[in-house]
Amino acid sequence: MLRTAYSRAFPHATLRRAAIALAGARLLSTSASPKLHRSPPLSGANPPMEFPCIDRIESRQRDLMAGPEPTYEKVVTGYELFTHDKAFVCDHGGLLPSLDIAYETWGELNADRSNAILIHTGLSASSHAHSHAKNTNPGWWEKFIGPGKAIDTDRFFVVCTNVIGGCYGSTGPWSADPATGKRYATTFPLLTINDIVRAQFLLLDHLRIDRLYASVGASMGGMQSLCAAALHPSRVGRLISISACARSHPYSIALRFAQRQALMADPNFNRGFYYDGVLPHIGMKLARQVATVTYRSGPEWELRFGRRRRAPDQPPALCPDFLIETYLDHQSERFCLQYDANSLLYVSKAMDMFDISKSVTQRLHAQREHARAELKQNPRSSNSGNHTVCMNVDDQPQSAAGNSAIETSDEITDDLVAGVKDAMQPALILGVQSDILFPVKQQKEIADILRRAGNSRVTYYELDAMYGHDTFLIDVVNVGAAIKGHLENDI
Amino acid sequence: MLRTAYSRAFPHATLRRAAIALAGARLLSTSASPKLHRSPPLSGANPPMEFPCIDRIESRQRDLMAGPEPTYEKVVTGYELFTHDKAFVCDHGGLLPSLDIAYETWGELNADRSNAILIHTGLSASSHAHSHAKNTNPGWWEKFIGPGKAIDTDRFFVVCTNVIGGCYGSTGPWSADPATGKRYATTFPLLTINDIVRAQFLLLDHLRIDRLYASVGASMGGMQSLCAAALHPSRVGRLISISACARSHPYSIALRFAQRQALMADPNFNRGFYYDGVLPHIGMKLARQVATVTYRSGPEWELRFGRRRRAPDQPPALCPDFLIETYLDHQSERFCLQYDANSLLYVSKAMDMFDISKSVTQRLHAQREHARAELKQNPRSSNSGNHTVCMNVDDQPQSAAGNSAIETSDEITDDLVAGVKDAMQPALILGVQSDILFPVKQQKEIADILRRAGNSRVTYYELDAMYGHDTFLIDVVNVGAAIKGHLENDI
Repeated sequence: MLRTAYSRAFPHATLRRAAIALAGARLLSTSASPKLHRSPPLSGANPPMEFPCIDRIESRQRDLMAGPEPTYEKVVTGYELFTHDKAFVCDHGGLLPSLDIAYETWGELNADRSNAILIHTGLSASSHAHSHAKNTNPGWWEKFIGPGKAIDTDRFFVVCTNVIGGCYGSTGPWSADPATGKRYATTFPLLTINDIVRAQFLLLDHLRIDRLYASVGASMGGMQSLCAAALHPSRVGRLISISACARSHPYSIALRFAQRQALMADPNFNRGFYYDGVLPHIGMKLARQVATVTYRSGPEWELRFGRRRRAPDQPPALCPDFLIETYLDHQSERFCLQYDANSLLYVSKAMDMFDISKSVTQRLHAQREHARAELKQNPRSSNSGNHTVCMNVDDQPQSAAGNSAIETSDEITDDLVAGVKDAMQPALILGVQSDILFPVKQQKEIADILRRAGNSRVTYYELDAMYGHDTFLIDVVNVGAAIKGHLENDI
Repeated sequence: MLRTAYSRAFPHATLRRAAIALAGARLLSTSASPKLHRSPPLSGANPPMEFPCIDRIESRQRDLMAGPEPTYEKVVTGYELFTHDKAFVCDHGGLLPSLDIAYETWGELNADRSNAILIHTGLSASSHAHSHAKNTNPGWWEKFIGPGKAIDTDRFFVVCTNVIGGCYGSTGPWSADPATGKRYATTFPLLTINDIVRAQFLLLDHLRIDRLYASVGASMGGMQSLCAAALHPSRVGRLISISACARSHPYSIALRFAQRQALMADPNFNRGFYYDGVLPHIGMKLARQVATVTYRSGPEWELRFGRRRRAPDQPPALCPDFLIETYLDHQSERFCLQYDANSLLYVSKAMDMFDISKSVTQRLHAQREHARAELKQNPRSSNSGNHTVCMNVDDQPQSAAGNSAIETSDEITDDLVAGVKDAMQPALILGVQSDILFPVKQQKEIADILRRAGNSRVTYYELDAMYGHDTFLIDVVNVGAAIKGHLENDI
């Protein structure tokens, strides 16, 4: 039904043709360029270098111009869809007139509805954490979920959602704005981690789950997990946060910023309005290359690739040459058409803004209430979103999300401790020593603030695994055992 | 005189006009795009996001199309120029029919010409390490050089060169190929770190300096320094290597690969033949952003920027928003027109290929000799460069630069030890614990292989400084003292 609605909303033959004409002009200028370089000085001291990786990018550009419109619906299938058809007001004042949440479940909800575990995903993951009858592809946490596994589906009813802002079924920039019938693109409102979590609790309301047995997540999923435990404490029984943080530090912001810039600089990006034209596949590929470097660590690559080359009997090349380069190239090649660029922008920005400090939570709450009041007066739309000036909330401290009055490290810690003062659930905080994106220092910080807030049941582990940030996806022996122990320990 | 030669070589009014027309077509397609987004669904749930950072990129593109041709000659001035007017055969078989080396000196060469120190630069630095009468701008190592300083110009005659492959006076892709009168662009031959060092020794020959008092360098400069000490041992008295490595590991290759890909994917790059058109300024900016993240570390940014925002009374934005983002934006903005994209490609590739292992050195030596022999038979040009197949050198082992027979970590270490067996000079190896690009593990490796090779005068220090890889540029207290101690210690 939703798909039919989309098809009705985009009878965009004309607009698409115009966009393709523009893209054509762009490619023409690119494809004309080789003429300049294919008449190199043949009598020069050396022959010109070859650029097979650029040839491939240009060939993909041509394919995309000729091919069908983009769709992310085929990437992940078999999920359930919950539609919340009331307005959802976002923390920064933006509005979603209605909300879809794609979700999948495993195991059985027990009679008193007390055995539900919510799994929160990382940045670009879908709800497909594990295979099932409607989608037999292995999920992104396939080995961690199942009968007898770390998250035991014989004991627990497991739920996983696609985050709002994503592109795998939940409402995101690729969705149609009901107010116009057109895709949101970058009229989509800014999201926070708590917006994502609040949307998940709407789904839990629908499933009549008042209280989760546990909230579990790694990376951005760990942010959601901490957020759920701290801001919705009555609904969370146990907390697991793996390789996440209590507030994003500038180094990880910088790494995500570099990715967003690569994406936005792609001429196809067109300020987010690319759905009727050619996807910003080049920017996505570049962004993914940077991301992959931050997800893995040196020790693993040293063992796996070392300094081995793709074609050792050939001279070195500027295009992928060492095996580590071809690995990054293939990785990013696969990703660049499978995840929506606008989703990457919005969801990664939500990660940057994450800060569980009390002052930040208070300020966002005040903004949301302000926008709600405005919406009541003018129900057609919200003008508080995106680029109007934030209202002045005189009784709120300027938060650490802004240029804070809070400056010293003691004040920052106190603000964080106050922010988690209601998170008294048994908590497992897990860090990986080779993680450069969410270093163990940040894992210790989560454990410390929980303990200082008075939580006496905080377990803190550090792993010396070699997979860096991605350890949570791979190391079922260590990560799996820690999860299982925490979930099944009778405390 | 050189400049006059360039002017004669590029009376390119026609070619330039054609290139600008092409770039115009490209910009047209870009500048037409806003029309798509400036008619957003005004009645939508939210207003569209703003993209001032994309506006700025487009405005720079227009400025560059209207402005004068690129020049790097104005970025650094006041250097001396040495021209070696014989053919220079590169390790990978490429040919430079003649060679310019830009250099600067400080202090006085003593009577027996025994007090010379050669400073090797990092990737994008010029010969301007310190100010002097012909260029009073502060140099990149201003505080480390001078009377009484770490490198004491009252005692030493200090030389610094722009590396070949660079764009600040030495022969690089931006230089004219004497065979054609046109700029090399990507007909420039692949370089190795030893090519760079061999060119520097040609300059030292010209200055009649047989033996350096010391060879000093950090980052890529440390690679050169180690290379000089190991492969030209009779010419190097002492060795200082800071934050470098004995062989590039896959993690740092991956980080440089991501930068090169961003650069090459810029439509203006045109496979390196952009000198008559618009520079690939967007790709350079993106590459610099990634580079800057790898040059600095978390601890410093946490203190310097924390989570402070540019305009805390404004709502969050997808363009630069946190102070760390505006910092990266400004940093890269300044750099993107000041360093040549092709230089970045060639010099960073030389870093990736660096491996002081004996098998690699032997193989490169054999390749060079092979190319020299070919050149004698056909003096007009070398066809061994860039993309012809390497010859089979049967009596050489397949090297670690290829898919090596050498696989185990013991064999790799033995090969490295054999590679530095002649580097018996007093050596200072300095590492920084917060450096993610050249981690201390790699610094220890240099010290270990030198010691295992029999060098009994290896000093190894680790600093807990917070500036990451860039510590060598900043921390004059710790880095400066270590250098001074090593240079002036009577051993």
